[in-house]
Amino acid sequence: MQKKMLTEKTLSPSCFIGINDPDIISFGSGQPDLPPPENVYSCLPTYQDFKYGTIVGDKRLREALAKQYPESTSEDFIITNGASEALDLTLRSIQSIPMPGKKDKVLMMRPYYYSYPYLAKFAGLKPVYTESVKGKIDFNDFKKQVVDCKAVLINSPSNPTGRVEEIETLKKIENLAEELGFYVISDEVYKELIYERENYLIKGSRVVTVNSFSKTYAMCGFRVGYLWSRDAQVVKRITEMKTHTSMNTNILGQEMALSATKTPREEIEKQVEIWKERRDLTYNGLKALALELWRPEGAFYVLPKISTPKKFVIDMYNQYNVITYLGEWFGASDRVRFSYALDKEKIVEGLKRVKAYLQKCWPLLG
Amino acid sequence: MQKKMLTEKTLSPSCFIGINDPDIISFGSGQPDLPPPENVYSCLPTYQDFKYGTIVGDKRLREALAKQYPESTSEDFIITNGASEALDLTLRSIQSIPMPGKKDKVLMMRPYYYSYPYLAKFAGLKPVYTESVKGKIDFNDFKKQVVDCKAVLINSPSNPTGRVEEIETLKKIENLAEELGFYVISDEVYKELIYERENYLIKGSRVVTVNSFSKTYAMCGFRVGYLWSRDAQVVKRITEMKTHTSMNTNILGQEMALSATKTPREEIEKQVEIWKERRDLTYNGLKALALELWRPEGAFYVLPKISTPKKFVIDMYNQYNVITYLGEWFGASDRVRFSYALDKEKIVEGLKRVKAYLQKCWPLLG
Repeated sequence: MQKKMLTEKTLSPSCFIGINDPDIISFGSGQPDLPPPENVYSCLPTYQDFKYGTIVGDKRLREALAKQYPESTSEDFIITNGASEALDLTLRSIQSIPMPGKKDKVLMMRPYYYSYPYLAKFAGLKPVYTESVKGKIDFNDFKKQVVDCKAVLINSPSNPTGRVEEIETLKKIENLAEELGFYVISDEVYKELIYERENYLIKGSRVVTVNSFSKTYAMCGFRVGYLWSRDAQVVKRITEMKTHTSMNTNILGQEMALSATKTPREEIEKQVEIWKERRDLTYNGLKALALELWRPEGAFYVLPKISTPKKFVIDMYNQYNVITYLGEWFGASDRVRFSYALDKEKIVEGLKRVKAYLQKCWPLLG
Repeated sequence: MQKKMLTEKTLSPSCFIGINDPDIISFGSGQPDLPPPENVYSCLPTYQDFKYGTIVGDKRLREALAKQYPESTSEDFIITNGASEALDLTLRSIQSIPMPGKKDKVLMMRPYYYSYPYLAKFAGLKPVYTESVKGKIDFNDFKKQVVDCKAVLINSPSNPTGRVEEIETLKKIENLAEELGFYVISDEVYKELIYERENYLIKGSRVVTVNSFSKTYAMCGFRVGYLWSRDAQVVKRITEMKTHTSMNTNILGQEMALSATKTPREEIEKQVEIWKERRDLTYNGLKALALELWRPEGAFYVLPKISTPKKFVIDMYNQYNVITYLGEWFGASDRVRFSYALDKEKIVEGLKRVKAYLQKCWPLLG
């Protein structure tokens, strides 16, 4: 198949979908390239069920998750079609809750995961933004913006910044949430991919934690996510909504997720080592090209500043067979996102091509 | 486990969920009891994929479906998390389309599938109702009510009435849709379960047909549904929405659905024979008890009139170990829904118990 050249007009978040040419190095898609733990597939050969599952999800899976969250029971969980559905249902449900003094607004940090503004709007909520400092929440600005918001979206570790919020900031947000009564939706899908410290679980009476089996267990295609909340009212509303909007999450996906929960801790930690190596390689490589960027502390993204981002993404693809994502899609119009979810050899080769391009543009570069 | 007695207060659409006592005869749940065709499981033992699938669904599956729909291509389909998600996304997308002269209203026939009013409201649409005549659309009333509606929901064969709309009525609706410009959402999940004639596929420029693998192939738990539309604008909007709200449908569920499409036609027809026997048994049995009811022409429900429906449902469960569903949940407050998705012996035993109860209430009965 002939390669289709990219133009400013065809450049879009979906323009790289389905490209499968081995000559192309993709720093694009945000999905693990390493397969799931083998035990994830172990239930398949003898599987025979077919009937509806319960709306909130398989009790065994919720019980296994309850063991991972402090002071929780299976009743605090809903299994969803990926973290995406968990976010969608949570936002729609919160929008439907009358909250005197609050407007139908949801606060999120910029740069943000590219679906957040869409999900907010689809749910009838206006997305409002707090600007980040070095890719992290600026609590002073956050505090100003949040006053009349029904909810905030926190994403630490963050896609696309790769940054992990300071525990101090998260604790301040917890306190502010109790004081002002807004909901905290904490998207922690990268919580097992932190290079610097353990994950800090945001807690509170109006917290909804969103997670997924996609990143930790490389189960993206199976779409098994979940939410956890100690707010029984929200859990009930979301359950009622899901009863009509999608019913149970695929029973076989849930069975595979249950197997995934039995993966030895060491296996996950071994994966983190691989990710860390890739992080170092990518971060140091881009740094050596004199690009301005934040050091990733989690997830598998880095978001360097590029003076002409659109031209960069288009040229890198058309001339150098390298896929990168435009920062604009994530609310960072002066940056480009690199995902380092690919093996070391490819990262090295990709960085070489980036260097070749930058040297052509700015011959004085290193 | 001790049986929990039902009261008027605890009676709700979810009150029978999880009841699994072999002494209880359930005319409740609307899911096939017969397992899926064996080939549905054939892909499992060697399955190895794990990455994201495309948002609109596996191309091979969409191509297989395109062969079942006239003048269609794989581009006209989106694979969804069951028919539920197809309905949810379609309603939300249509709500977002500006339609001068139309209000944010969706017309549906009463009795309706119990999720319809919820789905409409969740999507920001007001459900409005047209009353049925003998469980079928009254076109004259339909015509009056539809004028300022953005969309109508058609469900033929119908859950809960078991009725199949007249082809003449459906053709009139097709013409009216072209004339007035409203969307027709045609929920045809029971299209392979018609006892009287072939399914009539509603066509038109603003038609969205919703279907599923749940009923025809007994794949309820796997949640694979789809929508088909020749309206590229709607397909695009729904795809954009699904990109953020749930991403691809479980890749393994889709693989199983692809296997299901290869099921020989005779196997499906053999199933219809089984359903027809059960229909006759249930319909004749209830008729013999002097109940007023419509003869089911499709699906696997019958909706008899009962003078005291709440008392009936509660007493049948508490005293006779029989589960039935309150018609009120489906917009038919003077009726009770029986699903005959259970084997003949159980239907016979269940009907005996209904007879015993009715004879106790009205000793003069047959």
